[in-house]
Amino acid sequence: VFDDSHPPAGSRPGTLAIPEGSPAPRIFLFEYDREELREFAASDVEELAPYAESESVTWIDVQGLGDERVLRRIAELFGIHPLALEDAVNVPQSAKSHLYPQHHLVIARAPLRGDDGRLGVPQVCLLVGRNYLITFQERYFGFFDPVRERIRAGIGPIRESGPDYLAWALIDTMVDLYFPVVDQLSQSMDALEDEMVRDPAHELLGELHRLRREVAVLRRVGWPQRETLGLLCRDPSPFIGEQSRVFLRDTSDHVSQIMGRVDFCREISVGLMDMYLSTLSHRTNEVMKVLTLMASIFIPLTFIAGIYGMNFEHMPELHSQRAYPLVLLLMCVLALGMLAYFRWRGWLGGRRRRPRDPD
Amino acid sequence: VFDDSHPPAGSRPGTLAIPEGSPAPRIFLFEYDREELREFAASDVEELAPYAESESVTWIDVQGLGDERVLRRIAELFGIHPLALEDAVNVPQSAKSHLYPQHHLVIARAPLRGDDGRLGVPQVCLLVGRNYLITFQERYFGFFDPVRERIRAGIGPIRESGPDYLAWALIDTMVDLYFPVVDQLSQSMDALEDEMVRDPAHELLGELHRLRREVAVLRRVGWPQRETLGLLCRDPSPFIGEQSRVFLRDTSDHVSQIMGRVDFCREISVGLMDMYLSTLSHRTNEVMKVLTLMASIFIPLTFIAGIYGMNFEHMPELHSQRAYPLVLLLMCVLALGMLAYFRWRGWLGGRRRRPRDPD
Amino acid sequence: VFDDSHPPAGSRPGTLAIPEGSPAPRIFLFEYDREELREFAASDVEELAPYAESESVTWIDVQGLGDERVLRRIAELFGIHPLALEDAVNVPQSAKSHLYPQHHLVIARAPLRGDDGRLGVPQVCLLVGRNYLITFQERYFGFFDPVRERIRAGIGPIRESGPDYLAWALIDTMVDLYFPVVDQLSQSMDALEDEMVRDPAHELLGELHRLRREVAVLRRVGWPQRETLGLLCRDPSPFIGEQSRVFLRDTSDHVSQIMGRVDFCREISVGLMDMYLSTLSHRTNEVMKVLTLMASIFIPLTFIAGIYGMNFEHMPELHSQRAYPLVLLLMCVLALGMLAYFRWRGWLGGRRRRPRDPD
Amino acid sequence: VFDDSHPPAGSRPGTLAIPEGSPAPRIFLFEYDREELREFAASDVEELAPYAESESVTWIDVQGLGDERVLRRIAELFGIHPLALEDAVNVPQSAKSHLYPQHHLVIARAPLRGDDGRLGVPQVCLLVGRNYLITFQERYFGFFDPVRERIRAGIGPIRESGPDYLAWALIDTMVDLYFPVVDQLSQSMDALEDEMVRDPAHELLGELHRLRREVAVLRRVGWPQRETLGLLCRDPSPFIGEQSRVFLRDTSDHVSQIMGRVDFCREISVGLMDMYLSTLSHRTNEVMKVLTLMASIFIPLTFIAGIYGMNFEHMPELHSQRAYPLVLLLMCVLALGMLAYFRWRGWLGGRRRRPRDPD
Amino acid sequence: VFDDSHPPAGSRPGTLAIPEGSPAPRIFLFEYDREELREFAASDVEELAPYAESESVTWIDVQGLGDERVLRRIAELFGIHPLALEDAVNVPQSAKSHLYPQHHLVIARAPLRGDDGRLGVPQVCLLVGRNYLITFQERYFGFFDPVRERIRAGIGPIRESGPDYLAWALIDTMVDLYFPVVDQLSQSMDALEDEMVRDPAHELLGELHRLRREVAVLRRVGWPQRETLGLLCRDPSPFIGEQSRVFLRDTSDHVSQIMGRVDFCREISVGLMDMYLSTLSHRTNEVMKVLTLMASIFIPLTFIAGIYGMNFEHMPELHSQRAYPLVLLLMCVLALGMLAYFRWRGWLGGRRRRPRDPD
Repeated sequence: VFDDSHPPAGSRPGTLAIPEGSPAPRIFLFEYDREELREFAASDVEELAPYAESESVTWIDVQGLGDERVLRRIAELFGIHPLALEDAVNVPQSAKSHLYPQHHLVIARAPLRGDDGRLGVPQVCLLVGRNYLITFQERYFGFFDPVRERIRAGIGPIRESGPDYLAWALIDTMVDLYFPVVDQLSQSMDALEDEMVRDPAHELLGELHRLRREVAVLRRVGWPQRETLGLLCRDPSPFIGEQSRVFLRDTSDHVSQIMGRVDFCREISVGLMDMYLSTLSHRTNEVMKVLTLMASIFIPLTFIAGIYGMNFEHMPELHSQRAYPLVLLLMCVLALGMLAYFRWRGWLGGRRRRPRDPD
Repeated sequence: VFDDSHPPAGSRPGTLAIPEGSPAPRIFLFEYDREELREFAASDVEELAPYAESESVTWIDVQGLGDERVLRRIAELFGIHPLALEDAVNVPQSAKSHLYPQHHLVIARAPLRGDDGRLGVPQVCLLVGRNYLITFQERYFGFFDPVRERIRAGIGPIRESGPDYLAWALIDTMVDLYFPVVDQLSQSMDALEDEMVRDPAHELLGELHRLRREVAVLRRVGWPQRETLGLLCRDPSPFIGEQSRVFLRDTSDHVSQIMGRVDFCREISVGLMDMYLSTLSHRTNEVMKVLTLMASIFIPLTFIAGIYGMNFEHMPELHSQRAYPLVLLLMCVLALGMLAYFRWRGWLGGRRRRPRDPD
Repeated sequence: VFDDSHPPAGSRPGTLAIPEGSPAPRIFLFEYDREELREFAASDVEELAPYAESESVTWIDVQGLGDERVLRRIAELFGIHPLALEDAVNVPQSAKSHLYPQHHLVIARAPLRGDDGRLGVPQVCLLVGRNYLITFQERYFGFFDPVRERIRAGIGPIRESGPDYLAWALIDTMVDLYFPVVDQLSQSMDALEDEMVRDPAHELLGELHRLRREVAVLRRVGWPQRETLGLLCRDPSPFIGEQSRVFLRDTSDHVSQIMGRVDFCREISVGLMDMYLSTLSHRTNEVMKVLTLMASIFIPLTFIAGIYGMNFEHMPELHSQRAYPLVLLLMCVLALGMLAYFRWRGWLGGRRRRPRDPD
Repeated sequence: VFDDSHPPAGSRPGTLAIPEGSPAPRIFLFEYDREELREFAASDVEELAPYAESESVTWIDVQGLGDERVLRRIAELFGIHPLALEDAVNVPQSAKSHLYPQHHLVIARAPLRGDDGRLGVPQVCLLVGRNYLITFQERYFGFFDPVRERIRAGIGPIRESGPDYLAWALIDTMVDLYFPVVDQLSQSMDALEDEMVRDPAHELLGELHRLRREVAVLRRVGWPQRETLGLLCRDPSPFIGEQSRVFLRDTSDHVSQIMGRVDFCREISVGLMDMYLSTLSHRTNEVMKVLTLMASIFIPLTFIAGIYGMNFEHMPELHSQRAYPLVLLLMCVLALGMLAYFRWRGWLGGRRRRPRDPD
Repeated sequence: VFDDSHPPAGSRPGTLAIPEGSPAPRIFLFEYDREELREFAASDVEELAPYAESESVTWIDVQGLGDERVLRRIAELFGIHPLALEDAVNVPQSAKSHLYPQHHLVIARAPLRGDDGRLGVPQVCLLVGRNYLITFQERYFGFFDPVRERIRAGIGPIRESGPDYLAWALIDTMVDLYFPVVDQLSQSMDALEDEMVRDPAHELLGELHRLRREVAVLRRVGWPQRETLGLLCRDPSPFIGEQSRVFLRDTSDHVSQIMGRVDFCREISVGLMDMYLSTLSHRTNEVMKVLTLMASIFIPLTFIAGIYGMNFEHMPELHSQRAYPLVLLLMCVLALGMLAYFRWRGWLGGRRRRPRDPD
């Protein structure tokens, strides 16, 4: 389940466990202020050096964690704390928000359905400095393309604000990705509910289990995210301005709303399981009634037929002329009596007659 | 389940996702103080301009969210924060209470049973300014008609109070709408309980599921509402006066009371499901007993009859004159023995004889 | 379930929804200090006027809420806040404690088993003023008779204390009424447990459901009461003296203790339901074993008998002299073999032989 | 369940409900300082009078609550608050810690298995004054004998410390009594688990219920104890010194540890119940398979035998010489076909053949 | 379950209950500063005396608790509080963090799978002094070997930091040991889930129970550990520097992440149990259908055969030439009718025909 990478126990702090298969880092850099925008892909990590102290806002987006040397050099240039770098690389961490002397670390996660339909929740690590924002992604996820467009087009206050606003914009974009996932989850749950109410078939159980699993995944990932955003809104940090907090509060509300829906899906899934189990019990009960009915009617009749199939020499009834029709009549009466009894017990379709019969 | 509208992920803050099918805004304006009342429907949004700064209390009720330009112009006139406008338009949000520099935003939700019997919980967004209250509704819901009447008639302190009191009156009206819904829910639950206790039929299961679903909906919507009202009572806000807080505290109590009842319904519904399942098990047990009784009595008898139905040449019993009556007697004895055994096991109606028999 | 009275949604604050069937108010007045005691039933509400400002302690007990004019006149005389009067009249509210400028409102509830055995939890509203206590009851419940006796007899510090002590005495009396109800509940639960452990019969299920329902009622009513008493002990109020708080803390402990017991009953009831269900499954299993045993033994034998009951001309066995006894022997062997098999499987009474057999 | 004693509702505060069967109080007194120790059993309550003001530490241990006059006289001598005396006598209270002006009241409870194996949790009330400690026990429980020995022998700092240290020593002794009870509980749970995993028999259900009940009792009693000790460590009290708090914190840890284990037992018990139920279902399923197998194989064969047992005159097969062996062959083929089918369905022992067959 | 050692109830504080089988203490000492490192195994406890006051950092690692005299002498030399020594020796304690005047006590626990595959969670006690760290282990566990290597090699800031940093490094190493255990647990859970979804066999139940048990163990041990680390990060302590707190916060995050995963495993295990139970019910239902089908088809046919097997003299049908084929035809029609009925009921493979049939 947890395809994550930890360094071995007892490693010194800051030991990096590069996630298997992560590509070599590609570094994209945005530098902007109200008037100007510079954007380029750094071919060498040393190109970043001038931006550690620049006055305009710099966003360094590191895609891929496959080269420890590059990562360590970035950390060196920007004064990144070893533990912060560890959190950025040893993916996935739970969502978190930590203040370090040189920067504020935020880990955020966004749901992403893989090609195999499996729900993954990759992380992005954001380091908000005084005048820069560094983001680390395991590989290119495409989360941030809309924000890039906004920077380029200068839409909204993004070009006039600091790295904290940019960080918020990225986190908000990630949180917004929960909505389609939860919408899809609840649509699947709705469809399943409709089918279950109409005809609870065994085949639906696998789907129900899959949905419960996704609910569990979203809860595991979402609660720390909710807590993290709450902390970001409330706890003082020199790297996050008052105006960005207003926006973070809004995003925090979104996470709460998402978690409310996930919990709702969980409640519904419990109800569906109960419903399936009780319908199954009901069906078994119905099948048993049919069996009991057939057996109770025909077994005694067959017994009577068996009696008169015996080969004793001295069975006076066998010789009477009326015996055969009388026995047939007796059988009919018995069968009808049984039917009447079962009807009275309420086993023959519909509701039972006796409204207060406890069984 | 969640028929809500979000802007796409990565949109700039304040992007409006006009809910599908929402009509064009119709704007109703009340301006009043202790002596005077002016009330009109604004045909053009520019008519609102003078009221942004007027000294008397102004209530601007926007019904319908179908025209982004109108909404944005209102926001401009009254200095509404882009995130606040987003919350007003991107319905439904969870209930919330946020303080902005120019106004206090409150999202409240009220249950509304649609024509198809489905429980919806539409939202109203209230923006409490220094001297105005702006409300945004997705369409005309009729929630606020009684308050309009109170303003017109000048009943109670409403004409002598500020926009915070008016906001409270509207929120209180919305909270009061929960009572009939919860009353109806618990009456349905009661009726279901009575039927379940009397005769737990499979047909009741669908109704039980429907009620559990409504309980889940009310819980999802109600808990944030409860929290929101608690915050409104406690947290300082320059737009909400001390005297209105007393009223909000009362409304907050009402929400707590409502949630207590919803939780009670949930508890009962769990009990009913348990009861249904155990009654079903009991019935299956009863059916099985009948079958086992019939089979256990008649199968051995039929076997005996089968023995004497065999066609062996050398079966001395067949020729004895007393054989037939003796065999019949044996059969009777066997049947009575079986009955006695089952009676002793307690399978024949009523409670078992042996009070300490563990099975 | 909730036979309560709300005013329609959108009513102005302070709208009174007189509970249906509540009798016209009868007003009993106690005025006392250390030396003197005056006690009379007021025939007219105006008789209360002088007591609003009197220096000695006044207890005004209003029994019955059937006349809005009288209630409003009392509110006017004693400066009762409209919301407080609303809480007093629109019964039942959850337990609560609210401080108003002129008085402290406390809503307390006490369990009362009706003549039909149904558990009701009526409320009493207490308004603690500087020198008066006003109590509103829906009708005469008899809760307070022991306190009346204590005032008359001057037992304890009641005559030397203020209206806060009197309020405590009344609340304490109401809380004490939970004890017999919870004692009775746990005795019923114990009796049910004993019966369930001895012989889990279907008839006990209705009783179990009834007890679970009462547990749910007590939890719904009790938790707000617990919270209310906690607030009364802690939160500052000019109307509640330090010395009365010591007593309130004691009463608060009692409520905690009561709720601990109610939760214990809930835990036990869950265990009983599990036990019933598993015993039922066990019984069905036992019944099935008997059926399978009978069927598995006799069906093959009957088949053999059927073989030799066939009427083919050429069945050499039929003519052999030893055939009949041999077939009978075969049948015995088969039957004994089956019995041995089932004994080996452990289906014949007692524990199975093979201790590690997984089924 | 709750064999406790309350005064009737509406009693004045401080009303004592002497627990039924409690013996008359026997009073044991220890007076000690670093050098000296005096120990005697007071034959008359008045002998205690001098110790209310003595400078050395006095421990008055009251065993038995059967004489109200004696209890009241002690209260008078030492200035015990009426509510404190009530808590001491109206046993059992939940564990609590209350500060009164003259003393600090602590109620602690310790588990005690009675001669009938039933788990009781009697209370001890400790009143910590400036220079005295008074303890009230319902009767002599023997809890405190080890502490008495420590005082006599002067082991540890007990003779050099105040009544708060002595109170801690007594509470710690009581908390330590939980360990053997919880150890025994978890050993029983372990033994039950082993048996359940090996062979889930119906007889074990009663034991499981008994253990669940004890877990519920320990939770009901333990949580308030945990809270009480937390308060004792944290809340300021003039009667409890800083150095004793260090010891109380340690005892508080013990209670937390105990409750962690009790919760663990609860978790396991839920797992065992699930396991029992699913094993039972599995067994019923196995029994059903045997029945279905036997019936499905032999019922059609018996039918075929029945066909050729009919007495029609014109049944050409009957006269053929090969008919009988052919019919026998047909029967064998049918039986083997059925067996093959059931083997293919996986009903014949072991795992099913087709790994992806959903049923 | 809990193989722990307590002193008997009523023992004086600081009584040591040496865990059974713990070897005699072996003491390893590291003394280091930036430049120098001295490392030796102390053969006599008195060799430690000089290090109590040395200026460089000293780590004293006590492996084995089997000699009370040695332990007490260490306590004496370093001023260890009796309760701290008690916590170090009376293993296992829950994880805890206590500040004493001379040192800060931390109890940490790490999971360790024994040779029998059973999950144990031994404790290590850390005492952080001004210039020393003392660790007590029940026996040599090997947890700390990587840290020893780091000290020797001078990797990272460990040689330049105080005993608080060393304590963190040890605790972090222990917390890291949870990761492989939880990874293994979730891999087992995943494998079980795959098998359960494919073919829920009874044999898997034991494995499921084993996994649930380990989840319960990890929860019992992990929650106090989480709380302890939270306290270590937040609460002021003169022995833990600001810089070490940053590292502790990181470790605290790891524990939270681990607990999130354990809770996820718990959620999944509940889903698997539900799934197993419902699949079992479904299978029983399927078995019942086969039985009912066979019985319902053949029992009536056998009855008809029985009729014409009767030996009455006067059965006119027996003499008709067409009777036999007609009866065979009737039997076919009956059988086909039954099949058609069961097909219509949806009992013959696949989904039922009538989509809205409630049973």
